Amino acid sequence: MKRVAIMGTGGVGQAYAAKFISLGHEVMLGTRNVSEKLSDTSKDGYGNPPFSEWYLANRNVKLGTFEEAAIFGEIVLNATLGIKSIAVLKSAGENNLKGKILIDVANPLDFSKGMPPSLLPELSNTNSLGEEIQKTFPGVRVVKALNTMWNGLMVNPALLNEGDHTAFICGNDAQAKATVKEILKSFGWLEQNILDLGDISSARGTEMYLPLWLRIFGATGSGAFNIKITSLK
Amino acid sequence: MKRVAIMGTGGVGQAYAAKFISLGHEVMLGTRNVSEKLSDTSKDGYGNPPFSEWYLANRNVKLGTFEEAAIFGEIVLNATLGIKSIAVLKSAGENNLKGKILIDVANPLDFSKGMPPSLLPELSNTNSLGEEIQKTFPGVRVVKALNTMWNGLMVNPALLNEGDHTAFICGNDAQAKATVKEILKSFGWLEQNILDLGDISSARGTEMYLPLWLRIFGATGSGAFNIKITSLK
Repeated sequence: MKRVAIMGTGGVGQAYAAKFISLGHEVMLGTRNVSEKLSDTSKDGYGNPPFSEWYLANRNVKLGTFEEAAIFGEIVLNATLGIKSIAVLKSAGENNLKGKILIDVANPLDFSKGMPPSLLPELSNTNSLGEEIQKTFPGVRVVKALNTMWNGLMVNPALLNEGDHTAFICGNDAQAKATVKEILKSFGWLEQNILDLGDISSARGTEMYLPLWLRIFGATGSGAFNIKITSLK
Repeated sequence: MKRVAIMGTGGVGQAYAAKFISLGHEVMLGTRNVSEKLSDTSKDGYGNPPFSEWYLANRNVKLGTFEEAAIFGEIVLNATLGIKSIAVLKSAGENNLKGKILIDVANPLDFSKGMPPSLLPELSNTNSLGEEIQKTFPGVRVVKALNTMWNGLMVNPALLNEGDHTAFICGNDAQAKATVKEILKSFGWLEQNILDLGDISSARGTEMYLPLWLRIFGATGSGAFNIKITSLK
């Protein structure tokens, strides 16, 4: 059982927190300001109930500042908005993250140029959020994973097609990737469907898939889908 | 039976030419300079035999300049390098393309920044090659299609998983998309696997998938794969 720090208290962070708890791990969610977060009774941008309601129903989950969460976690998961991720992780403290596995599930979406969102120009094409985190925190073992699907599927792949669809991982540290692969398998991902794309620069590929994901979502009206790689045998 | 103009004589153009001929269509390949193309006996960048050899074995295929091909074709297919597509289509002549369906299967790959290629910054993220063609030639009915897979699969989807994998189309003209859908079906694409993503701005999605395609290719060592969208029933 691990101590898992989840940066970000939105729908994605909540989905991971509930899943890790259900698997017997300890979880602390990190947020900018704990008392503000608990006293906020407004719905989020997607119309979900306020965090405080979710928190009351999930009392096994701890809540702390980004810094407290980083200190707490053996494994850190970045579920913040891509545009804020670097600043959040800096405020968590480089020394508190050092040597730890950081699972980056975020995407560098840019909502400033209309819908559907594009990607932040400085974090796409010849760069990526995953790489930027790795460059900013060279002592952290960044693994990009699970950023290519709806958060309901990330933690419950068996919801769809008996779990027979594809997840990608990338990162520079083989041991960290092996650990993350085990975590994915504990969520229900099938070993043969977890494709290691290589080093962290491969995050460019998985993040640049998001614009296609958003168009499929727009065309079908549902985010409850994923892609399955089908290859010549 | 249609007269099909294919801009570009590389492997992608050749694959389409052979397929359209096999289905009983008339085909003219467009190139910059016909006599130069026929006298070129060097292998292409991928080690394929020179065009002249292929041409000798495919004598039903006509060869003309870009302009001659545009005049010839009822349907025009863009199989040029993305970096050259706009210039090629300009040299084909706007008036020769007017009112016609242009199937754009090209990708705006940028080989200038290392391998695997990135996308041309001016044709990605908040723009795309498909959109740029539509903006440059407003009288042309642009349909983006089949740019998300290896050219062997584009024209022979049944090679893989009994044809059960996904193709995308996008464009502003519903009738043009319906025609292209019929062409895809004649290649072997299954109706239920051809997903209409919407207007031509959706080409951003299918083109930005290429960096992921390239990473999967790099990780698996084979381009003989495609994605299948799997959805909650």
